[in-house]
Amino acid sequence: MAERTLLNQLVEALRCLPGVGPKSAQRIAFHLLERDREGGKRLARTLAEAMERIHRCTRCRTLTEREVCPLCANPNRDPGLLCVVEQPSEIVALEQATDYRGLYFVLGGRLSPLDGTGPEELGLDVLEARLKEGGVRELILAISPTVEGSVTASYIAECAEGTGTAVTRIAHGVPLGGELEHVDGGTLALAFAGRRSL
Amino acid sequence: MAERTLLNQLVEALRCLPGVGPKSAQRIAFHLLERDREGGKRLARTLAEAMERIHRCTRCRTLTEREVCPLCANPNRDPGLLCVVEQPSEIVALEQATDYRGLYFVLGGRLSPLDGTGPEELGLDVLEARLKEGGVRELILAISPTVEGSVTASYIAECAEGTGTAVTRIAHGVPLGGELEHVDGGTLALAFAGRRSL
Repeated sequence: MAERTLLNQLVEALRCLPGVGPKSAQRIAFHLLERDREGGKRLARTLAEAMERIHRCTRCRTLTEREVCPLCANPNRDPGLLCVVEQPSEIVALEQATDYRGLYFVLGGRLSPLDGTGPEELGLDVLEARLKEGGVRELILAISPTVEGSVTASYIAECAEGTGTAVTRIAHGVPLGGELEHVDGGTLALAFAGRRSL
Repeated sequence: MAERTLLNQLVEALRCLPGVGPKSAQRIAFHLLERDREGGKRLARTLAEAMERIHRCTRCRTLTEREVCPLCANPNRDPGLLCVVEQPSEIVALEQATDYRGLYFVLGGRLSPLDGTGPEELGLDVLEARLKEGGVRELILAISPTVEGSVTASYIAECAEGTGTAVTRIAHGVPLGGELEHVDGGTLALAFAGRRSL
């Protein structure tokens, strides 16, 4: 086959999907062309619109097509609670798993000076300004317990000093249903150090 | 989150991809939005164009955006050899694995009266007319060695009777029940070279 057929272009374009190699891309292309053209057309339309119109929420930096995302704009959410996460997908996970009724703030990563990710890339200046406005009773840090995550958490805790905001961090320990012997040493040490009265 | 955000629509639309469930769709959406907007935009454009413009080649019924596909239009291919495959993806596999220089004909399935797949759905009337035109020395059946595939092969062999075309079938080096596109190139090349008269 010639190199620049539209079919080859489609296979090539599908490679932008995470985890999709040449074989899978070809399988997806044939599947859409032979069995689901309507789905393919709808995907093309929605994808074009989403790539063009979805940006960061000006309040919490999550992904939304509006100026302010539905969560931030919801008057039933408690603005006194602010939960800091790394990625927008973690908001979805927390919303499904918990009955949290406060607001969120999305960093989009962790502090990592070597990779050029400083406080401004994570919107920490925006977060600090928001804390200084007052009104946030509790700032809940739902940040991964990695080295960079802990540095980021410490940095945010410092920003919050003197603003009258209580800073908490979600518990790290043995996951529910996890067997002690299969949990890694770091987690076990954290869980042991973080033991609480029954 | 509200139900009809553009993000939710994108996640929903991504479900048309084979093997993509709700979790993967969400992961893909966030990946494209946060890390590869250019790739996402290119995919949207190419997908829209492909879904609109790619149709079956009028000669061989493979998928192409032209009236006649590049393979059929290539004057360097031998029109005296015609290889019948079930799916367009199998042409790609055969082209990569063998040094075949003839043309192809794509059925798009196998004869299966119970599913309503008769000779016309597979373009067998078109194939028969082409054989009656003359000029095809050898008709090579590269059809899966399943029950329906064998019935289809026999039907085509009958169509070719009296047209002076030799009918061969690729050797059963292909594992029984195996899909052509997933067979390794070596096996495919062996099977192709070991074709025998029906």
